[in-house]
Amino acid sequence: MNRFTARHILGISTLSPDEITFILDTAESLKDILERPIKKVPPLRGKTVVHLFFEPSTRTRLSFELAAKRLSADTVSISAKASSVVKGETLIDTARNIEAMKPDVIVIRHPYSGTPHLLTKYVNSSVINAGDGTNEHPSQALLDVFTVREHLGHIENLKVVILGDIFHSRVAHSDIQAFTKMGAEVVVSGPATMLPSRQSEVLGAKVVLKMEEALEDADVIIVLRIQKERQGQSLIPSVREYATFFGLSPDKVKLAKSGALIMHPGPINRGVEMAPEVADGPYSVILDQVTNGVAIRMALLSLLLTKAES
Amino acid sequence: MNRFTARHILGISTLSPDEITFILDTAESLKDILERPIKKVPPLRGKTVVHLFFEPSTRTRLSFELAAKRLSADTVSISAKASSVVKGETLIDTARNIEAMKPDVIVIRHPYSGTPHLLTKYVNSSVINAGDGTNEHPSQALLDVFTVREHLGHIENLKVVILGDIFHSRVAHSDIQAFTKMGAEVVVSGPATMLPSRQSEVLGAKVVLKMEEALEDADVIIVLRIQKERQGQSLIPSVREYATFFGLSPDKVKLAKSGALIMHPGPINRGVEMAPEVADGPYSVILDQVTNGVAIRMALLSLLLTKAES
Amino acid sequence: MNRFTARHILGISTLSPDEITFILDTAESLKDILERPIKKVPPLRGKTVVHLFFEPSTRTRLSFELAAKRLSADTVSISAKASSVVKGETLIDTARNIEAMKPDVIVIRHPYSGTPHLLTKYVNSSVINAGDGTNEHPSQALLDVFTVREHLGHIENLKVVILGDIFHSRVAHSDIQAFTKMGAEVVVSGPATMLPSRQSEVLGAKVVLKMEEALEDADVIIVLRIQKERQGQSLIPSVREYATFFGLSPDKVKLAKSGALIMHPGPINRGVEMAPEVADGPYSVILDQVTNGVAIRMALLSLLLTKAES
Repeated sequence: MNRFTARHILGISTLSPDEITFILDTAESLKDILERPIKKVPPLRGKTVVHLFFEPSTRTRLSFELAAKRLSADTVSISAKASSVVKGETLIDTARNIEAMKPDVIVIRHPYSGTPHLLTKYVNSSVINAGDGTNEHPSQALLDVFTVREHLGHIENLKVVILGDIFHSRVAHSDIQAFTKMGAEVVVSGPATMLPSRQSEVLGAKVVLKMEEALEDADVIIVLRIQKERQGQSLIPSVREYATFFGLSPDKVKLAKSGALIMHPGPINRGVEMAPEVADGPYSVILDQVTNGVAIRMALLSLLLTKAES
Repeated sequence: MNRFTARHILGISTLSPDEITFILDTAESLKDILERPIKKVPPLRGKTVVHLFFEPSTRTRLSFELAAKRLSADTVSISAKASSVVKGETLIDTARNIEAMKPDVIVIRHPYSGTPHLLTKYVNSSVINAGDGTNEHPSQALLDVFTVREHLGHIENLKVVILGDIFHSRVAHSDIQAFTKMGAEVVVSGPATMLPSRQSEVLGAKVVLKMEEALEDADVIIVLRIQKERQGQSLIPSVREYATFFGLSPDKVKLAKSGALIMHPGPINRGVEMAPEVADGPYSVILDQVTNGVAIRMALLSLLLTKAES
Repeated sequence: MNRFTARHILGISTLSPDEITFILDTAESLKDILERPIKKVPPLRGKTVVHLFFEPSTRTRLSFELAAKRLSADTVSISAKASSVVKGETLIDTARNIEAMKPDVIVIRHPYSGTPHLLTKYVNSSVINAGDGTNEHPSQALLDVFTVREHLGHIENLKVVILGDIFHSRVAHSDIQAFTKMGAEVVVSGPATMLPSRQSEVLGAKVVLKMEEALEDADVIIVLRIQKERQGQSLIPSVREYATFFGLSPDKVKLAKSGALIMHPGPINRGVEMAPEVADGPYSVILDQVTNGVAIRMALLSLLLTKAES
């Protein structure tokens, strides 16, 4: 009995709390496989997953690829440079051509928000959004919620603080929705230039300009990566000033609850948005996030593909 | 009983009509696999296919890779940039080194005509030409013939028109030979600078300068891609003029037989060599070509490798 | 009974003669698989090998990848450009993130000496050094010893001459140690700028400035590649002069024992460090080295991974 009926994973915005819980529970049972000497099971044998990445990515692509392989699916990867896009083909033509080769799932990352949604109108395969512009990165949010649930036992009534460039971060946008839907209180903070202007709330999260105030009594601190490559330097005076005023130092961590979880979607700019002692400290669950990412992606592939067959 | 005796697939020029028919029949039986929920069969388990691509390619490489994986072969891909070629090694040394690692098939694409043929003198593996310079692209022609046979039931006595840069197109060169060998009448047309100069015939196809005349009573229209990246702009005054005078518009399609098949090897420059309404129209079989490409490549790999064992 | 206890393969320096012999014997039994029509066996099914290459490489990466696939392991490849390194992440963070995805072996090539050793302090996976800076390239040395043993029956008391840029060559550094440990006499020669300055010995090999003297009575001649891309041109006056004075010509081969084996780690600069007639001559075992490379890497993966389970 598969009570998961979604055909695509486009964002947290289209998932219900029940669906999120079902994904987390599935990931939990699949995570055991990652601890075995033989980390491979047969459910997706004969299925094909296409990774269509229009932005460079190591860890997300690798995580999806390993997830697919551990479920015995075949994988092929297409990166923007190698793709026909350089030959002037439209995205829709690229997608329809890939579709015509009969893959089962297309995992797409694209610099423009909404691309995965557009894709679903033109292809029959299931589509998983692996990050679209500044919109959403749902598998990241699911692994974040999974990691918190694993460590703290529940999500309801937790205070989750997200620090950094909230405005441009698809991770923030997905995280806010995922934690809020699961009953947490989400507070966001960062430089004023990186927050929604003149709003006290974003997607249900409270905007708090003062980082010290935001951190108060936090159960979970999610620090976003400074995306130097995406936004140019004009939003912050300098990396050094960002580190001084907005970097998560051991002192600032003390403002949160004792034992508050420290999270980061990676890759970390050590000494910029997070001090090394915090990243490597006893309450950091950053590497657990990476491990759990494979489990979450196994769950997503497995739920979409076993559904497709029934 | 495998009556297919070729060791390599270098071009349509070296295949007999019987061999072509045998390949098409094999592809037809393999195509069923692509419609199943589990698109994988075991005949090539333990075989290794090396894709050696000296030109960028998404769709051909992807098509070969999926074909190999669906027959359970292992695949490895080498692209020109990553290869030792940058270190000054000769092509023959590269090939002999790959050969020494005991692959079963080498699928090669190379900007110089004749490279796959040269390779066969130095390696024991089977070689498949995935496009060599302006010479041939046999798997493309086979999937084109397959697609026409699937839709119209036969090839004999059909009028097949190929439009575009006939002179520089390996697709045209292979298509002309394949359709001619199977009994079709082939007519080619395009700008005078893109046709064999002062010849009324090329490889058995009739050269007709006037596009309107060429299209008359056509059963099949194959539109070639304007290869901006290959030939520079000097052969045509401008892309816009090409579109106006040589692009396949709905009006021009009316000159052909009603229901004439519209084909394109992809990727399409929409609005240049073909109008979007034609590409997406009811008689376009462009995406069928893509699907059939996987089936044809499964047939080629399967015929070469099951033969090798006997 | 697996008497191989090493957890990593970092260099020849940390392997005992017994361990080397055990690796060679294992490779010998695995080499048979490469001669079969079905070149695949199941021992590493469900295991994952990550290839983490911070330097371009075709043949070494391909060799490891084929070795892993023929033992039924899953493989993923990460190259420096695609990796998070471009986003400013440290090597250790990259490694710990990969580790968190639970691979079984990390095969690493890196331009800095000592990187694989550093890695072992931060990850639990087995690490194989596929070349680190100018330090070591152990799998190359093992396949060289294997190839000599296969052709001459033993290593003890052979005279092995290594020609070229001894100072900067990780292949030379590993070869010297491997052949010396197995009882051979190793002599190195090359331009004075490419030899350890004012030393008569390097890692147990005798330094002989005069190439003619070095070659006398040699059983094995290993010619190193001129690494134009690594060292700039300042060490040699010109490629032409290198070819004239230090290139291995047929005449120079005559100074060695009749039937002396000719070896090269590839890719060859034909006509520079080795004359084509020598590379293609009757005593060249250069392509055997390539074939044996797959067998040696199968042995390494298999020994590390079947050990890990016990």
